Amino acid sequence: MFITAQERPNPQPAPDVSEKFNVGIAGYSFVNFNLDQTLEMMEKCDVKYLCIKDFHLPINSSDQEMADFHNKLKSKGVTGYAVGPIYMRSKEEVDNAFEYAKRVGVELIVGVPNYELLPYIDEKVKEYNFHYAIHLHGPDIELYPDADDVWENVKDLDPRIGMCLDIGHDTRNGKDPVEDLKKYHTRVFDIHIKDVTGATKQGYSVEIGRGIIDIPAFVNMLREVEYTGVCSLEHERNMKDPLQGIAESIGYFRGVIATTKK
Amino acid sequence: MFITAQERPNPQPAPDVSEKFNVGIAGYSFVNFNLDQTLEMMEKCDVKYLCIKDFHLPINSSDQEMADFHNKLKSKGVTGYAVGPIYMRSKEEVDNAFEYAKRVGVELIVGVPNYELLPYIDEKVKEYNFHYAIHLHGPDIELYPDADDVWENVKDLDPRIGMCLDIGHDTRNGKDPVEDLKKYHTRVFDIHIKDVTGATKQGYSVEIGRGIIDIPAFVNMLREVEYTGVCSLEHERNMKDPLQGIAESIGYFRGVIATTKK
Repeated sequence: MFITAQERPNPQPAPDVSEKFNVGIAGYSFVNFNLDQTLEMMEKCDVKYLCIKDFHLPINSSDQEMADFHNKLKSKGVTGYAVGPIYMRSKEEVDNAFEYAKRVGVELIVGVPNYELLPYIDEKVKEYNFHYAIHLHGPDIELYPDADDVWENVKDLDPRIGMCLDIGHDTRNGKDPVEDLKKYHTRVFDIHIKDVTGATKQGYSVEIGRGIIDIPAFVNMLREVEYTGVCSLEHERNMKDPLQGIAESIGYFRGVIATTKK
Repeated sequence: MFITAQERPNPQPAPDVSEKFNVGIAGYSFVNFNLDQTLEMMEKCDVKYLCIKDFHLPINSSDQEMADFHNKLKSKGVTGYAVGPIYMRSKEEVDNAFEYAKRVGVELIVGVPNYELLPYIDEKVKEYNFHYAIHLHGPDIELYPDADDVWENVKDLDPRIGMCLDIGHDTRNGKDPVEDLKKYHTRVFDIHIKDVTGATKQGYSVEIGRGIIDIPAFVNMLREVEYTGVCSLEHERNMKDPLQGIAESIGYFRGVIATTKK
């Protein structure tokens, strides 16, 4: 009890515990919040990597708006490491997304392109030298239900086209994200971490640690395949009051990281 | 993204992951909140064990107030497993504390008795057949700075007199709580988990995982010594808005528990 009455600043950023991969948050977790509120919650949980959603930085932002956005992130020590998920249903939407990423200054796009646009994506990654991570979606929608589906569709394309491995949706489509990370790690460029209650469409998102995904096994596999990207929490519970769930999930994941450290 | 719009109840209590020890919260964490608010935060974090502080259940409570208190806990599935910490500066205060625990219906008292009262505590534990866990306090106060001090003072007393091992205060007094748990586990009846920034009086409480305590080593030691009590988070940061920190700390600790499970 009563160590200290006063509140003191955090002595240092949360140790992100691994030299190889980082812990971040997918912007979608903050769909009900503006950028200031988002950054405040990230600061409370000491998370420094954000995958930027267009509701925080619209595709048609002016140069000034882009600069303001970056200044806000910088003031909190946050890196916007990618944009997306962005749906792409036409070549024009693909063009817009690549130009947007270029203006934002990131080299990783998390996207959901219609299948027939993949050859065009192949051209674009060559032109821009970006990585393109297809977000897999489980049984809810027809596009890219799981890691197998993404792999089958991209394996003969440019190696810069791969996946954002959403471990919850992969599980909900009956797959094992640990095995899928092992099989497909050469094309895993981004990861959405979360937990879910079941391995079917009826499974739904809960705080990490409260569901069925074997998080220690997953983190061990991150180390085994030497993943070097970001693991971004995509928090999908109590989305109007998410701070507790985000904190619990980030805490749990960091506890697993600390314990699996060699 | 968008697994489910609706909010569904948690499918099951958070798996407390070990058959041997449990995760709880020390009532002091909620010094600025009434019992309803306390139970609401515990429910959000899915914590089921509470060490009862007198500001939630005063020592002079009527039978009806005690019954109401227990009914509230029961309605949330919470077990009040102990009372305290309670300061005891006179025989009368010792008497009152033991009678209070008896009326509350617990058999574990977390206490801070003046040293000269220890022989009297010895009589009382024999009379009531309770366990008595002395809360150690680090360099802030003169009584019981660390686990060594408690041990030296109780080792020749009834084996039901031991300690509430506060891993933060022990660390702040320059000791290693992992080693102390190993050495003294036969008299560790309760544990306060937390994290601190330094191994001196200047070290202060932070969210578990953000400080210097080796939590994985501590949890491994809990298993090694087959600890069967409760590890109660005593959260001492942002105490007027503690939910995020409590959630992060509980999440981290559970992540470590899950990862160290054999």
